[in-house]
Amino acid sequence: MTESKPTARRTAETDESRPGAARPGRPRSERAEKAILDATVDLLAEESGVDGVSMEAVAARAGVAKTTIYRRWPNKEALIVDALGALKGPLPELPGTGVRDDLLTLARYMSVERGLKASRCFWNVVGGAEKYPELYERYRQDVMLPRREVYLDVLRRGVERGEVRRDVDVNVAVAMLVGAFAYHKPPDPLPDGFGEQLVDTILRGISTD
Amino acid sequence: MTESKPTARRTAETDESRPGAARPGRPRSERAEKAILDATVDLLAEESGVDGVSMEAVAARAGVAKTTIYRRWPNKEALIVDALGALKGPLPELPGTGVRDDLLTLARYMSVERGLKASRCFWNVVGGAEKYPELYERYRQDVMLPRREVYLDVLRRGVERGEVRRDVDVNVAVAMLVGAFAYHKPPDPLPDGFGEQLVDTILRGISTD
Repeated sequence: MTESKPTARRTAETDESRPGAARPGRPRSERAEKAILDATVDLLAEESGVDGVSMEAVAARAGVAKTTIYRRWPNKEALIVDALGALKGPLPELPGTGVRDDLLTLARYMSVERGLKASRCFWNVVGGAEKYPELYERYRQDVMLPRREVYLDVLRRGVERGEVRRDVDVNVAVAMLVGAFAYHKPPDPLPDGFGEQLVDTILRGISTD
Repeated sequence: MTESKPTARRTAETDESRPGAARPGRPRSERAEKAILDATVDLLAEESGVDGVSMEAVAARAGVAKTTIYRRWPNKEALIVDALGALKGPLPELPGTGVRDDLLTLARYMSVERGLKASRCFWNVVGGAEKYPELYERYRQDVMLPRREVYLDVLRRGVERGEVRRDVDVNVAVAMLVGAFAYHKPPDPLPDGFGEQLVDTILRGISTD
């Protein structure tokens, strides 16, 4: 990020009074960036979705000048991609003790995540795919495909360890895992024990034993 | 439908020259209705999705008076639900010779259907769920849930016949089947042989043998 003069609404005093907020000495530009990304996510999660996100609206919500946003992001698509990436965050650390343990960890994470603001943002980006194809494509490249690689790696390790049959198409298994969660689009409730049943049904379908 | 004076753009002559078009003697009101539903689907499949559908736009596209639409549909949500229901049409007839044959028939149908206009409409309705929750809910009730019942019935018959284990949660199996297709959102291509591999992996997971 280039030098900037953020005018973030929150003062350093306010930030320091909140747990997990900016450390003393954290650069103001970093705080402005966080305010901008938070504002983008908030707007994106609202009912008007991608349509409702504009540089003007983000600046107003974040309490920064529009120029502060343009210094870092050339357009709203780039801003949204970064905001979503930051929001989704890394997947949980995997125990690595076996394919079932890893898949259950991922399934539990997906069960929680679907209730979060991130999920509304995700569906709004997917829903806007026809209207904003470049945004969807960037989101796919920057967020969805790296995640898919994590899921695939779990299954590939399972094959290497002899837990998963060699003739299994790991792409199909990933589509079953992630797609089954998407089938219950929020706010549809997820049936009790869904993640565990899903993982065990998939495992029975792909296991060597 | 009450008495109407449709002014459908297509004349009877034009219709009769097309295969599968109106039979001679088909009431003009029926032709107007078809023109209205077709126009709704066309608009819904376009990039602006549900936003782009209005009574005005449908009337213009269908070549009918707005009053002709209002005689039958009180608002655009009702019109969209009927249009989608008509478009998706019935699922294919199932062979009924076993759970694998039935699932393969459904999977082949889903493989084809995802390339059709219906699929773009579906994603636009799903994408507009935050903004048009009543439309999404009606679509769910009128189109998605009846389809889900067909899938569930295939699996329940499999349980009755002893092909599918009694402890399988058939809802999870349906989420795996339908969700896996949704995971490859068009225009992402479907991997070769996807439907068959998916069905066979699911079956291995739920079969008694």
